[in-house]
Amino acid sequence: QSSIIVFAVVDNSVSGYRNQAKGPLGTSVTTSQTALTSSALTPSRFGFRGREDLGGGLGASFWLEAGVNTNDGTGAGPDGLVQFNRRSTVSIDDGDLGELRLGRDYTPTYWNDSLFDPFGVNGVGTSLIATASGQAPPGSFKSGWSNAQYSRASNSIGYHLPELGGFYGQVMYAFNEKITYDPGGTTPPGVAAIAANPALAATPDNARAGRYVGARGGYRSGPVDVALSYGESTVGSNYYVGSTTTIKIWNVAGSYNFGIAKVLGEYSNNKMDTSLATNAFNPFGVTRPEFDGILIGVVAPLGQGDLRASYSAVRYKHVNMNTFGLNPDPKADKFAIGYVYNFSKRTAVYATFAYLSNKDGAGLTIGGPNYYTQAIAGVAPVPDKSYGYDLGLRLSF
Amino acid sequence: QSSIIVFAVVDNSVSGYRNQAKGPLGTSVTTSQTALTSSALTPSRFGFRGREDLGGGLGASFWLEAGVNTNDGTGAGPDGLVQFNRRSTVSIDDGDLGELRLGRDYTPTYWNDSLFDPFGVNGVGTSLIATASGQAPPGSFKSGWSNAQYSRASNSIGYHLPELGGFYGQVMYAFNEKITYDPGGTTPPGVAAIAANPALAATPDNARAGRYVGARGGYRSGPVDVALSYGESTVGSNYYVGSTTTIKIWNVAGSYNFGIAKVLGEYSNNKMDTSLATNAFNPFGVTRPEFDGILIGVVAPLGQGDLRASYSAVRYKHVNMNTFGLNPDPKADKFAIGYVYNFSKRTAVYATFAYLSNKDGAGLTIGGPNYYTQAIAGVAPVPDKSYGYDLGLRLSF
Amino acid sequence: QSSIIVFAVVDNSVSGYRNQAKGPLGTSVTTSQTALTSSALTPSRFGFRGREDLGGGLGASFWLEAGVNTNDGTGAGPDGLVQFNRRSTVSIDDGDLGELRLGRDYTPTYWNDSLFDPFGVNGVGTSLIATASGQAPPGSFKSGWSNAQYSRASNSIGYHLPELGGFYGQVMYAFNEKITYDPGGTTPPGVAAIAANPALAATPDNARAGRYVGARGGYRSGPVDVALSYGESTVGSNYYVGSTTTIKIWNVAGSYNFGIAKVLGEYSNNKMDTSLATNAFNPFGVTRPEFDGILIGVVAPLGQGDLRASYSAVRYKHVNMNTFGLNPDPKADKFAIGYVYNFSKRTAVYATFAYLSNKDGAGLTIGGPNYYTQAIAGVAPVPDKSYGYDLGLRLSF
Repeated sequence: QSSIIVFAVVDNSVSGYRNQAKGPLGTSVTTSQTALTSSALTPSRFGFRGREDLGGGLGASFWLEAGVNTNDGTGAGPDGLVQFNRRSTVSIDDGDLGELRLGRDYTPTYWNDSLFDPFGVNGVGTSLIATASGQAPPGSFKSGWSNAQYSRASNSIGYHLPELGGFYGQVMYAFNEKITYDPGGTTPPGVAAIAANPALAATPDNARAGRYVGARGGYRSGPVDVALSYGESTVGSNYYVGSTTTIKIWNVAGSYNFGIAKVLGEYSNNKMDTSLATNAFNPFGVTRPEFDGILIGVVAPLGQGDLRASYSAVRYKHVNMNTFGLNPDPKADKFAIGYVYNFSKRTAVYATFAYLSNKDGAGLTIGGPNYYTQAIAGVAPVPDKSYGYDLGLRLSF
Repeated sequence: QSSIIVFAVVDNSVSGYRNQAKGPLGTSVTTSQTALTSSALTPSRFGFRGREDLGGGLGASFWLEAGVNTNDGTGAGPDGLVQFNRRSTVSIDDGDLGELRLGRDYTPTYWNDSLFDPFGVNGVGTSLIATASGQAPPGSFKSGWSNAQYSRASNSIGYHLPELGGFYGQVMYAFNEKITYDPGGTTPPGVAAIAANPALAATPDNARAGRYVGARGGYRSGPVDVALSYGESTVGSNYYVGSTTTIKIWNVAGSYNFGIAKVLGEYSNNKMDTSLATNAFNPFGVTRPEFDGILIGVVAPLGQGDLRASYSAVRYKHVNMNTFGLNPDPKADKFAIGYVYNFSKRTAVYATFAYLSNKDGAGLTIGGPNYYTQAIAGVAPVPDKSYGYDLGLRLSF
Repeated sequence: QSSIIVFAVVDNSVSGYRNQAKGPLGTSVTTSQTALTSSALTPSRFGFRGREDLGGGLGASFWLEAGVNTNDGTGAGPDGLVQFNRRSTVSIDDGDLGELRLGRDYTPTYWNDSLFDPFGVNGVGTSLIATASGQAPPGSFKSGWSNAQYSRASNSIGYHLPELGGFYGQVMYAFNEKITYDPGGTTPPGVAAIAANPALAATPDNARAGRYVGARGGYRSGPVDVALSYGESTVGSNYYVGSTTTIKIWNVAGSYNFGIAKVLGEYSNNKMDTSLATNAFNPFGVTRPEFDGILIGVVAPLGQGDLRASYSAVRYKHVNMNTFGLNPDPKADKFAIGYVYNFSKRTAVYATFAYLSNKDGAGLTIGGPNYYTQAIAGVAPVPDKSYGYDLGLRLSF
């Protein structure tokens, strides 16, 4: 009676983290944790999907997918909520015209970070590009920034090209659903209120936040796969100041399968651009932080599984006032190596180990507890090294 | 192994709203929004249901149905929670005796509003009767009031008649699950506490809120379908004052299918009745607000779809002190028109447009942002007109 | 395409509770409630599970199970959240080696309380051992204490023996996922902060809370089934004081099926042990409260159903300073009787009645509202008797 497909992934692992900060006088302060985590190989989830064939190459489909923290049964949405946060879409597709998709979906710019990372941006092996891009909610521009539309955007319209002899592509627009006031002076807090209390003008309304616009195009044939993407996420705004803060991402990635191993690579540039931020008082552009990220990875079949390894790095720019080279911008490097043993297509066990090194004030971690940065004898420890491992079992249905 | 039916609806649309208030000196202030919304044709959901045939006409069944905001993947429960808020019931049914149903279910009084509205109380076309009845949580008696048991009631026992030659009917009782204190003087805050601080007596305990009792009966045969329902929702109470606030709804609705079109109509009366509210100081009964609502609609097959249109109106009573006709009671009128194109039984695209006009202080909207009512030059703008559209795609599995 | 099994239970009942406290001068104060409740025979839920046969006796499986309050459609997780709070696991199993299971699962110590209670610790018939063990979050050691890992533990690793000729067994370890600080003096609030404000040292960090370690072993053959279990739950800790609060449970239970009836019995000891709590100022050990619990039950086939009855009791120790027998420790006794009529394996109706009597300050209830304990004429009423019934319908798919 029902042709709905029910699907689920449960992936739990024993994971350990050790985050080391440099304290005063050559000491170090470490925070460490051993935990049962989920989603270190493949994100745990359940969902429903279905497609109706409407004839003549036309079809319609839906996809509802909810993330689950299967280590404790809570949802992967905010505050432990089970929500269809991974994907919630309805589509109409045509073999010749492509697919129109409405709802919450992955952003085009995310795919290069995800698909060309040997670890698929999961677990301790996650590429530094994704870590710094701020998949996690809070963050400074030194430790990954906040970008709610980094991996997915709600309220989106997407268009996907049909199969075009190896070429593929997609565009996405997500509504910020801002409320427009006419006359504009009634936009809260309103000109009258601001005249009475000028400080109110500085309060961001963030009405334009939530907007995303981006595109991705690529070519896939035989051993080769390359793709380019660009996207802009609006993350903050202020009507009266007239400012808009946008995170702009462009990246290019590719892979080549040599048979004995697939080699992957990516370059990504992420920039946080606040309009009106550049002026006479901001000659070095320090309020337009950005970073370049690179990844080089390899996936090599080995026995009944895959050996995976990657080197990823980020180099921040315009974060510090690097006067005469005395205060260089932060940077970080990461190595990850792991092995996945496949009992079958569905069932796998895996082990991953990763090491991360911060320099010049970067504060990225592999996971686990925050670096200890409370002042000791008046000196705040500085984030230094991060170690982590995952040892897990995954079932995918 | 499992005979559970899994079902889902995903319905997303691009929707726009424009709500216009009359400002001072002939000006107007509008708030407008373009958004990706869900559930504008059919409420987005997922669920599980099953029925066991126990033989001899006897059966048992269950139904769990959760609303989903498929534009962003959050749940349609309070605070974005995915909950089985649409229906959560277990039943035992018999061909001769009817069905006994326990749990959270639709109220009898809701069915006439829903089934005889060409738009099924979904999207911008929703009948004004439903809007004013306060499907949405907060509200004043001018802009729809709050009635948590308007469409559904938790903790209910329902009885549905078996098939009786065209006649159908149901009754429902929902427990408020109030705590009874014996002796009554211990009911919080308690007589001793009130003696010390008489103001405490005025604090409503709302212990009797949540109760619903109602019934519906109708007749359906060939082209005709008519039904009558009555119900009472307790929405507030105070043990020491002895007051109970009840929303009483009665409505009658019918449809006749002429073949080229089905014509639908409804009359509904909604009254908010607070016991003890009528006294010497309340000669005009202004604390017993009520409204009459009417709907006239049409659904006409056209091509591979349906043209749908409706006119609905509400007329408030006992809201203003209408002394010598100087301060008439609020009223509102709404027109909606739309077309649904059915690719198949499951897949449809649709477009709906609606226009709403408030008079004499009514503040109903089609959706989207609130009217702007902050004072401008000392004069608060008055809600006036509301416009809205939906343009969407729905899949039902 | 999917071999996932979807399963669900919906169990709703009309239930009543009457909780009577002894007031001053021979009076009594009762709180009572009639409600629609869920899960009184079998906990309402939905879930997904699947197993892949990997050949050679090897297999892998997952299990996601969420509790639902089917009376109102909310989730059975905290704050009405739908979460996979009942079970969320991934396993690898082998016919010879047993099963390794990761995630959120039942604790070994819970099984004896649950499996040897004629009412399966559901509804008003629930064994007093489970009530006092603090299945519900808050509680004092007189009315059941708080033990978040009583029935289930998150972040756990479990091992289950394979089938061994009637012998069965399991062990479980659950991570507290505490953050370790090195040097230890940096553990919040930190030695420097404590030196400045010594009161901070007393603030519990509870970093070690959440840990569970336990085991269970038993033998089942023909009419006989006996099992023994022991487990420790860490429920609180303080790094600077050096204290750890652990609830230690050991129990032994058995059943014998005489054919005309199955007789069940259990003895359980629950102890709340705070390290550092015994010292010269605590000669009577009053801060190491414990209780002994016993259960005797019977399940007798009768017609197309089962008659179920139980007597359960708890005797607290080290709660009061029982000097010369003047202030004896609290105790409580409970009787429950019920009948389940099975229409089929899936569909059942049931009725249960229970009576509970508290003595010497115990404050356990069968359910429903709290005892009234606000002072009347300067004297706080004392919890006395509790009565309750369930009358329900259950479907299990």
